[in-house]
Amino acid sequence: MAENLLADLSDARQTEQFTQLLQRPGLRIERIVSRGQCSPPDDWYDQNEHEWVLLLQGAAELMLADGSVIRLTAGDHVYLPAHEKHRVHWTDPQQDTVWLAVFHH
Amino acid sequence: MAENLLADLSDARQTEQFTQLLQRPGLRIERIVSRGQCSPPDDWYDQNEHEWVLLLQGAAELMLADGSVIRLTAGDHVYLPAHEKHRVHWTDPQQDTVWLAVFHH
Repeated sequence: MAENLLADLSDARQTEQFTQLLQRPGLRIERIVSRGQCSPPDDWYDQNEHEWVLLLQGAAELMLADGSVIRLTAGDHVYLPAHEKHRVHWTDPQQDTVWLAVFHH
Repeated sequence: MAENLLADLSDARQTEQFTQLLQRPGLRIERIVSRGQCSPPDDWYDQNEHEWVLLLQGAAELMLADGSVIRLTAGDHVYLPAHEKHRVHWTDPQQDTVWLAVFHH
């Protein structure tokens, strides 16, 4: 009855993989698998939803609008309020990076 | 700016450790660290909130009211609708088991 989100990682070498794990009114849980992808330099996420994000494995860097960079490894979590502009500055090209994102209103 | 939920695991050898990671209207994210604890045989969780639970590390078993047992290892996730009665049947006494629980209305 349990599903596993670390087994059967979709192949992220070509493009990032987004898998919806739960969708309820005002709540959405998503798995993202990255392998070296990052946001283009001037491409910012500016979301209507709040996001709590946890790195499950791998390594990544988020950049905020003030230029600060947040390095993430397994177990690190960050809260991004709605409209806190951010971009994925870097993800490790040598391994799959798995994010868990909880979006809510 | 990121916090890590796998570093500095609280000592769960005496009692299970509950740490609130996020609390918003209708949403609560909690880390639970277990080390061998389980629910007493006739002690069932019967919650008003829906719960999406992910095992981050370790090993555990949930039991449902029909007697079925769900074995969980790292990456396994289960959705427990409100009032789906369940108990923690077993957690590994040899290692810390870390749960991520997302409760919502």
